[in-house]
Amino acid sequence: MEDSCRVLFMPDNRYIVVSAGENLLRAAMDADVHINASCGGSGSCGKCRVIIDEGEVEREPNAKLGDSEIARGYALACQTRVLSDLKVTVPLESRIGDKKIFERAEPTPAHGYLLAAADWEERLPEWELDPPTRKVHLVLSEPTLDDNTSDAERIKRGLSVEAGLRDVVVDYPVLQRLPNMIRQSDWDITVTVLDSGDELRAVRIEQGDTTLRQSAIAIDVGTTTISSELIDLRTGEVTARASDYNAQVAFGEDVITRIIYATRGTGLAKLQSVVVGTIWNLIKNLVEQAGIEYCNVTHVVVAGNTTMMHLLLGLNPKYIREEPYIPSGTLFPWIKCSDIGLRIAAGVYLYAIPCVASYVGGDIVAGMLASGIFNTEKMTLYIDIGTNGEMVLGNRDWMLSCSCSAGPAFEGGGVKHGMRATGGAIEQVRIDKVGYEPMIITVGNRKPIGICGSGLIDLLSEMYLTGLMNEKGKINTDLPTARVRGKEGSAEYVIVWAEDSATRRDIVITDVDIDNLMRAKAAVYAGIEILLSSMDMDVSVIDELLIAGAFGRYLEVDKAVTIGLLPDIGYEKIKFVGNGSLLGAHLTALSKEMMDKANDIARQMTYLELSMNPAFMDHYMSALFFPHTNLDAFPTVAEKLESYRSVQRMAAETAAGEGEEG
Amino acid sequence: MEDSCRVLFMPDNRYIVVSAGENLLRAAMDADVHINASCGGSGSCGKCRVIIDEGEVEREPNAKLGDSEIARGYALACQTRVLSDLKVTVPLESRIGDKKIFERAEPTPAHGYLLAAADWEERLPEWELDPPTRKVHLVLSEPTLDDNTSDAERIKRGLSVEAGLRDVVVDYPVLQRLPNMIRQSDWDITVTVLDSGDELRAVRIEQGDTTLRQSAIAIDVGTTTISSELIDLRTGEVTARASDYNAQVAFGEDVITRIIYATRGTGLAKLQSVVVGTIWNLIKNLVEQAGIEYCNVTHVVVAGNTTMMHLLLGLNPKYIREEPYIPSGTLFPWIKCSDIGLRIAAGVYLYAIPCVASYVGGDIVAGMLASGIFNTEKMTLYIDIGTNGEMVLGNRDWMLSCSCSAGPAFEGGGVKHGMRATGGAIEQVRIDKVGYEPMIITVGNRKPIGICGSGLIDLLSEMYLTGLMNEKGKINTDLPTARVRGKEGSAEYVIVWAEDSATRRDIVITDVDIDNLMRAKAAVYAGIEILLSSMDMDVSVIDELLIAGAFGRYLEVDKAVTIGLLPDIGYEKIKFVGNGSLLGAHLTALSKEMMDKANDIARQMTYLELSMNPAFMDHYMSALFFPHTNLDAFPTVAEKLESYRSVQRMAAETAAGEGEEG
Ligand code: FES
Ligand code: FES
Repeated sequence: MEDSCRVLFMPDNRYIVVSAGENLLRAAMDADVHINASCGGSGSCGKCRVIIDEGEVEREPNAKLGDSEIARGYALACQTRVLSDLKVTVPLESRIGDKKIFERAEPTPAHGYLLAAADWEERLPEWELDPPTRKVHLVLSEPTLDDNTSDAERIKRGLSVEAGLRDVVVDYPVLQRLPNMIRQSDWDITVTVLDSGDELRAVRIEQGDTTLRQSAIAIDVGTTTISSELIDLRTGEVTARASDYNAQVAFGEDVITRIIYATRGTGLAKLQSVVVGTIWNLIKNLVEQAGIEYCNVTHVVVAGNTTMMHLLLGLNPKYIREEPYIPSGTLFPWIKCSDIGLRIAAGVYLYAIPCVASYVGGDIVAGMLASGIFNTEKMTLYIDIGTNGEMVLGNRDWMLSCSCSAGPAFEGGGVKHGMRATGGAIEQVRIDKVGYEPMIITVGNRKPIGICGSGLIDLLSEMYLTGLMNEKGKINTDLPTARVRGKEGSAEYVIVWAEDSATRRDIVITDVDIDNLMRAKAAVYAGIEILLSSMDMDVSVIDELLIAGAFGRYLEVDKAVTIGLLPDIGYEKIKFVGNGSLLGAHLTALSKEMMDKANDIARQMTYLELSMNPAFMDHYMSALFFPHTNLDAFPTVAEKLESYRSVQRMAAETAAGEGEEG
Repeated sequence: MEDSCRVLFMPDNRYIVVSAGENLLRAAMDADVHINASCGGSGSCGKCRVIIDEGEVEREPNAKLGDSEIARGYALACQTRVLSDLKVTVPLESRIGDKKIFERAEPTPAHGYLLAAADWEERLPEWELDPPTRKVHLVLSEPTLDDNTSDAERIKRGLSVEAGLRDVVVDYPVLQRLPNMIRQSDWDITVTVLDSGDELRAVRIEQGDTTLRQSAIAIDVGTTTISSELIDLRTGEVTARASDYNAQVAFGEDVITRIIYATRGTGLAKLQSVVVGTIWNLIKNLVEQAGIEYCNVTHVVVAGNTTMMHLLLGLNPKYIREEPYIPSGTLFPWIKCSDIGLRIAAGVYLYAIPCVASYVGGDIVAGMLASGIFNTEKMTLYIDIGTNGEMVLGNRDWMLSCSCSAGPAFEGGGVKHGMRATGGAIEQVRIDKVGYEPMIITVGNRKPIGICGSGLIDLLSEMYLTGLMNEKGKINTDLPTARVRGKEGSAEYVIVWAEDSATRRDIVITDVDIDNLMRAKAAVYAGIEILLSSMDMDVSVIDELLIAGAFGRYLEVDKAVTIGLLPDIGYEKIKFVGNGSLLGAHLTALSKEMMDKANDIARQMTYLELSMNPAFMDHYMSALFFPHTNLDAFPTVAEKLESYRSVQRMAAETAAGEGEEG
């Protein structure tokens, strides 16, 4: 099996280079080769039939494909893995309408515009593994009548002499267990010392030498999803990962509904205990995966938006949502995990990465840290597209942030069949330019259940380019396809017929859905424009645009530009940083220097409140178009649109010709 | 009524100057004029009849004295207050045996040797009222969209700008209540900031200006008694005082039995909750006395011996009593009162004055601070005579401490009719040199119940000087008095006959009691000697000897020297500092500088462990005599003994002469 394979699709005559082992349907998707895949790649529709002309593949056995077909070279693209260079023919029955149009002399290379992951190494400054907790192994001299200093003072003396740690405060619970503990261990102990920045604190004493067992936990507390990592503090390696929905989701999808819930009765305590419950389950999972003990964990670092931090720490979030939007606090002292009900082991403290303002939280600060913006000369735009759409413009000299209330549409909220990027969510979409038939892949190649953020972006982009909807986001009800139904203004497009869906109901996108998505993308784009115009800049100054968020692995940057969510500044400038919040928490858990940097970032970042800003409203109104009122700002979109229209014209001519011939 | 009155007693022809209003029996006691007062001054025995020859008195009405007697000038001394200069005759019936012996040309002045209270002002260094908690009144600007810093940061900014307090950490409970609180108070608040030495911490926020209401509580946590003070932090004035038994007494009289109790099962938690209960009742009492609110209290300072601090803070005391006698800790971080179950108000922290070693605690450090020894050139010996008999020798250059396991005899423990210095305890005793009849005064002039420490010291001194017991502490069974009974070696002396006692039983002191008391005083004296000899010094170097402890107001220094408890260095060098522990806690509550000093004292003080010290054993054996094997070291005692013997000889001669006459 070769490492990378060239897959040539006929009759498109277009090839793409993919990693060996890649799914053939995914390869076709990325090569922009249309196959009528209706079941999300689950192998149930049987519509993604292709013929393997040359090369080696591995087929999953599937009832939709008979032995005789296999003998003739047939394969279900979605059930096939690429093992070598291939030549693949997409037969006519799989490609309604689109015939012979792309026959050319030379095969055309293609490539997808999946967001490239940013290169951390080049971004981050030099940093040493120097975590805020440290274990010190001490073999103390046994007390005598001549050396009768107290247990606590003996340990403090040991820490000073052996590790240069002076004026260590011994935590009361440690003091309370000290005498029996150190005698049972024959004066051979390991002390965990927390450097909180303000003071050194002995937070745990263990028998014998446990310095080889020291881990930290980094957690991104998202409004929807909580992600966590277990990190071995000796090596800095991640030894386990786990994530889960934030159980607070049951109390409201966005921060506003949670704030409202928190300010009623015992709502705050309820939300706190619920999120602590989710975190506890994740920690359990991490500890079990890595096969360690709970007591190996010496500290926890969390990052999250300002509301999530308030709810986790039990702080009243009420005034976050009332003008002028004031949080209780933005810098949080180290807190004992048990004080918030998180009982990992004795003496485990938690650090929350500081926030900037009510709607720019520690998750953004963590992202700034992780993406190295605070350390680069390049003018960088950092966008975290979640419920709020926070963004930061700047570099090592200054940072300006805002939050643009995008709403939860790209997380699936307010969209009829929207959903999170979990199994069965449609994550990639293509629509045939001529027959308006979709080609979809779902997360986990399962029967489709709904559509997640990246699928919605693909879908809007394809609907706009194919003319299924106009620049105002209205579905065109005049097209010759059964997939569009309903009246103008309240129409819908069927992505998956009931027979192919996991829910046994049609999966559709409606005019209302599109309107909600347009408002969301307009808010993000207006946020970008207002940050730039506040600094008398325009998009041309952006050296790098970093996308963070939970889009999963398949956010296609060209599609996001096509719908006007991101500015058209060249795809190569746009990079994906994944979960910047978690990575920032990770760095902070490993390095006191990074912790100081995070504090500096939070203090230095300027926050621009948009809610009452009239210029923001203007920018927002102008962005309520696909891609934008000002099409000149989106040259690649104009070009694409022209290319789609020309294909459609050629198809119409061919059809007319065939009609004449027939 | 004159301020001071001269009371001349006849036929002794001896006078004493007392304050107007003084009890006449007390005046006689101090003048060393014997009156057969048998009922402790309660007015029930009717034996303290005297005749007022000249001057003005106030008599309490008493059934034991008829109108005709009053007309003839009679009065019960114990029921009479001195209002002017007096001439008083003690009639023969009140003075068995002791006739005409002291008739002299000129009245002799007399004075008691009650310990003089030390003068604090001259001892203490300059110190400013600068308590560890400070209230800052802030009128904050209301947040706006342009000034949208968080509530906590706004307060920190205010503290920095208005009070120069930088980098204040805001306690979580404060953060949690912040948003509603400051809005309800219209941004007009008072912040209480604790300076723990390591960091500044905002521990409470109140509405409006509460800076005029700020108090601290100082507590001496004694093994037997807990004493407390409420101090107004604006003025430094004590506004209320309260004391009570430590309810732990029910679990053992001394620290050793309590340690044993604490190390079994849930004993530690039990003892902690019990002492916290006593403290809570005292605080309740203080707050009610002063008419303040609990929330006016901003911090608490406690001082106590090392075991008491362990039990209060919930620290395991087990190894305090096992060789080599190691406490869990000696320096204690500030702790939230609620963490030990003491719920005064939100955000009240407690500071425990540091200890030196297992048997030299924060009470001694507090005494060192309060008595100014750390600040004087004078070579000073500080002795706290309680269960343990801790002492310190030194001055501002060095301090050497030890604890001599005196046992609880002087607190009434191990003495048949021993008791604490409460109502009905015999606190002063004289014994007639000839008839061996006692003269007693009780605390509160109540019918006698038992004997307290100062009474025991008086009693031993009188028994030794009158020859009721010999220098080995054995009661002389050959004397012509019904008050001595039993066989040599297991004899007893009856101080109060059943008819005069509140218990309706004879109150006695036994050979066994005396033995226990001798061991206690020998341990103290041996401690003094070992401290001195460790430094190659002897008693002559002592410029000042300070006595601390719960002896009440009537410890007579000459009596303590007579029995060899204190060295014979001149009564004027010996001073009483009262409850040095409480006074030290008081100073520490008022001044961060004094808090630092207390820390310095605890760190710098050297501790000498006596338990395995053979030289200590030698000194102890030599001290198992009254006053001491080496009588040369007690010149005033030798002198007194000679004077008693000469009176006794004269009395015997007189009696013989009368016998011849009769
Ligand atoms: S069977 Fe392959 S997409 Fe449906
Ligand atoms: S009546 Fe005065 S002492 Fe008894």
